[in-house]
Amino acid sequence: MMNLERAQAPVAFLPDWLSLHAERRPGRVAIATEERSVTYAELHRAAKATAARLFALGVRPGQRVGVICHQGLMHALCLHALITLRAVMVPLNWRLSPAELAYQVEDCGADFVLCDEAAAPFAEQVASAAARRVPTIVVPREAWEGEGAIEGQPMREAAGDVSLTAVHAIVYTSGTTGRPKGAMITYQNHWYSAMASALQFGLDPEERWLVPMPLFHVGGMGVLMRSLIYGTTAVVHDRFDAEKVDCALASGEITLVSLVPTMLARLLKLRREPYPPQLRAILLGGAGCPRPVLERALELGLPVAQSYGLTETNTQVATIDLAHALRKMGSSGRPLANVRIAVQGPDGPTTAPGVEGEILVQGPTVFAGYYNRKEETERALAGGWLHTGDIGRLDEEGFLYVLDRRQDLIVSGGENIYPAEIESQLLALPGVMDAGVVGKPDDEWGQVPVAFVVMEAGTVLTDERSRAFREELRSRLAHYKVPVAFYQVDALPRTASGKLMRYEMRKWVMQG
Amino acid sequence: MMNLERAQAPVAFLPDWLSLHAERRPGRVAIATEERSVTYAELHRAAKATAARLFALGVRPGQRVGVICHQGLMHALCLHALITLRAVMVPLNWRLSPAELAYQVEDCGADFVLCDEAAAPFAEQVASAAARRVPTIVVPREAWEGEGAIEGQPMREAAGDVSLTAVHAIVYTSGTTGRPKGAMITYQNHWYSAMASALQFGLDPEERWLVPMPLFHVGGMGVLMRSLIYGTTAVVHDRFDAEKVDCALASGEITLVSLVPTMLARLLKLRREPYPPQLRAILLGGAGCPRPVLERALELGLPVAQSYGLTETNTQVATIDLAHALRKMGSSGRPLANVRIAVQGPDGPTTAPGVEGEILVQGPTVFAGYYNRKEETERALAGGWLHTGDIGRLDEEGFLYVLDRRQDLIVSGGENIYPAEIESQLLALPGVMDAGVVGKPDDEWGQVPVAFVVMEAGTVLTDERSRAFREELRSRLAHYKVPVAFYQVDALPRTASGKLMRYEMRKWVMQG
Repeated sequence: MMNLERAQAPVAFLPDWLSLHAERRPGRVAIATEERSVTYAELHRAAKATAARLFALGVRPGQRVGVICHQGLMHALCLHALITLRAVMVPLNWRLSPAELAYQVEDCGADFVLCDEAAAPFAEQVASAAARRVPTIVVPREAWEGEGAIEGQPMREAAGDVSLTAVHAIVYTSGTTGRPKGAMITYQNHWYSAMASALQFGLDPEERWLVPMPLFHVGGMGVLMRSLIYGTTAVVHDRFDAEKVDCALASGEITLVSLVPTMLARLLKLRREPYPPQLRAILLGGAGCPRPVLERALELGLPVAQSYGLTETNTQVATIDLAHALRKMGSSGRPLANVRIAVQGPDGPTTAPGVEGEILVQGPTVFAGYYNRKEETERALAGGWLHTGDIGRLDEEGFLYVLDRRQDLIVSGGENIYPAEIESQLLALPGVMDAGVVGKPDDEWGQVPVAFVVMEAGTVLTDERSRAFREELRSRLAHYKVPVAFYQVDALPRTASGKLMRYEMRKWVMQG
Repeated sequence: MMNLERAQAPVAFLPDWLSLHAERRPGRVAIATEERSVTYAELHRAAKATAARLFALGVRPGQRVGVICHQGLMHALCLHALITLRAVMVPLNWRLSPAELAYQVEDCGADFVLCDEAAAPFAEQVASAAARRVPTIVVPREAWEGEGAIEGQPMREAAGDVSLTAVHAIVYTSGTTGRPKGAMITYQNHWYSAMASALQFGLDPEERWLVPMPLFHVGGMGVLMRSLIYGTTAVVHDRFDAEKVDCALASGEITLVSLVPTMLARLLKLRREPYPPQLRAILLGGAGCPRPVLERALELGLPVAQSYGLTETNTQVATIDLAHALRKMGSSGRPLANVRIAVQGPDGPTTAPGVEGEILVQGPTVFAGYYNRKEETERALAGGWLHTGDIGRLDEEGFLYVLDRRQDLIVSGGENIYPAEIESQLLALPGVMDAGVVGKPDDEWGQVPVAFVVMEAGTVLTDERSRAFREELRSRLAHYKVPVAFYQVDALPRTASGKLMRYEMRKWVMQG
């Protein structure tokens, strides 16, 4: 008798979506921005022309290529040109400092950095800051016009189907240790994210998904990729403007929107009535939504859907149905299709209700590992589960409650801040003996970082010194990472083994 | 440097959909019939109770289990109970004769035959006709009530996630040779069919998909499985009644419907205006739709979508968009997501326009092979392509035109009839020296079989003899397979190697 279980190999390829849609629905809008809407045919043509240009300049399949674009439309063009070339995109967060980005560029061994005209000076700074000089390529706006950006250069066609397990992008995440690591996101991750989302929210063949979030994080990239897979429209706002987003949602032309809770809070200041029914869901990611914000949104009748996810799971792995939002306030919902969520219990992974422990995830949207970091990858994926570093519990109905979003992570306006990274910079400042950073609740940003420092004997942390510290840090770190306040203390709470107990410091913050 | 291509293993499991939906949307209707609607919670409970009953009677994971149900609701219950048990379902076409089904039961080594009360006498006939006596189990209607059908028997829970490549069902298809073969359909086949369909037609979270077709073919089974995967409603009509289907579609409560062209032709006799917009698509499968029927449907503004598929591809692999239906009249459309279609050209598989040859298919909905038929499986899947046996060509835009739906296949009212099978029965009749069967166009059924026979010297095929032949064949073959007419000829057209040229006989039919 045949072995029924082994009768079939799993599927290993996905189609080249862009050429598929360009052929089948050439006139449909692929990406809409305030400034311009481009159809699938236009996007395909521009991607092929840009791919030809990049190829002529030396970009090859499998190479890692950094991308820094201030304009969403140009970011999307780079993404598609790199898929066409089968090069690996490394989206770079331009809110970071040039030194921080230079580290990422070096770490992934990027061969090039692409940028749009707006980001060109900054990209140059990044490229120069890298130990190994990395060539930058400015992708001009003219790439959207004409047949090819380089005279006589033939269009470059995609290589056909793409391997399901091939790496599409490397997205940097600081992880719990504060050391940025490149998370490898595969095409399979995108495909299953798109399918899970369709199963969760349905799929309107005329979907228009608004993303006023940065495209360099998985949240923004996910909207671009899902719209691509569906052959629908990604509506991109280059920066979050509450009035513009409110206006777009009120127009009835948006069917789904991805937001971080801070953005929702700002929208609620403007909104007095529900949005039209075309808007099926407001996806909240990046951080847990403060209860008063969620309650206000539900009161207003907004279709909010709190989710849980991280870079290593390529966006959401759990989402709460609107039907349960009130009853399960504070929960991030249940796992999406094909995803398993468990908690690390005393005897291993468990879904038993009430057990508190590290949140574990299994499924097709879990990333392929950290680029060039075998050990960290093995640790993160030990035992076949992704170890998220977040603490949570499941209830008797399988709803996930995230108790501590990564042990020490500070989430500020949707950006992750890892205290260890800031602490290491603080320790380099003159007179600082020890330093600890934690988040402080903030109405506008969700959280903001504050620092506790131990100064050299006899040194006082004056206001003037604090200002100098802040200025110094601004030259080294992204603006949102610079602590909003510095407090001098005699000693920091540490365990016997010297590990910083940030939990204790958070108590100091809460006690004022 | 890491090998980026091999960084991730493809996904290997799927969730247990039924328990998932029973937990998350217990009150939603899973299956609606004229007689009764059952919710996901009810279906889950009944499936677990029935699984417990079957387990107590000896049904075990991996066993093949025949299913003969006249009532769709009972058929669906058997399907879910068998998934719960991880046994392989062998849906049996009760329009076949007991002898034909006994062959299938023997061929797949079925350990049991399940049936509903209505089909019990027939199932007994099948079981008795098998060389090795196969026990039949009647699944009672009471399985829908109470907690367990056997006193004190605990409910049987599904074994959790299911392997993507595990075989879900074995569906018999006669293939080109006329010898029925069991096509192994995997969970992966269903999953990708469901996703491809969502990408093609969108996915309404409140989908209600009407299936007035038999559930024992992949067309009907596909609707049950897709609705299961989506967590939406399958609306089952136990037999096609044009007025009832028309009424259902006109009610606005149906969002998708699967039909064979014959059914559409009958609907058109009743319909004078379009259906409400809730009906997004009328999927046509099983055979090419006659041009006048398609034209009339399009004139009326019906959202018809001609598709191409076969048992070995677990339903549709190509479907034509409504947008192209008129311009590409006669085409079955372009491949669905993840599917590749090519034509066997002189130098191998090609997508070059205009080349006529055997249609080849690749993709995740291609079946896992024929049960226990290594050689036929290897032939069917040679070179990594499914060899469909159908002849077709692609045009310059990638649209598929099926020129001959399997060389000799007769499609009558959605049922496949393989001439070779009928011919072998004809040859056993007294006085018949040679026989050939081909299809004749028929307004109602699409095609009906007619027979050309060579009689022994001096024997004339009188009307009386024809009637006797017909009666004899009715005892051996399904009713629809019995030729509607017998014509006596002096000789049949055969090649030098003796192969019957049915093409020539079809010309006789067309010339009257």
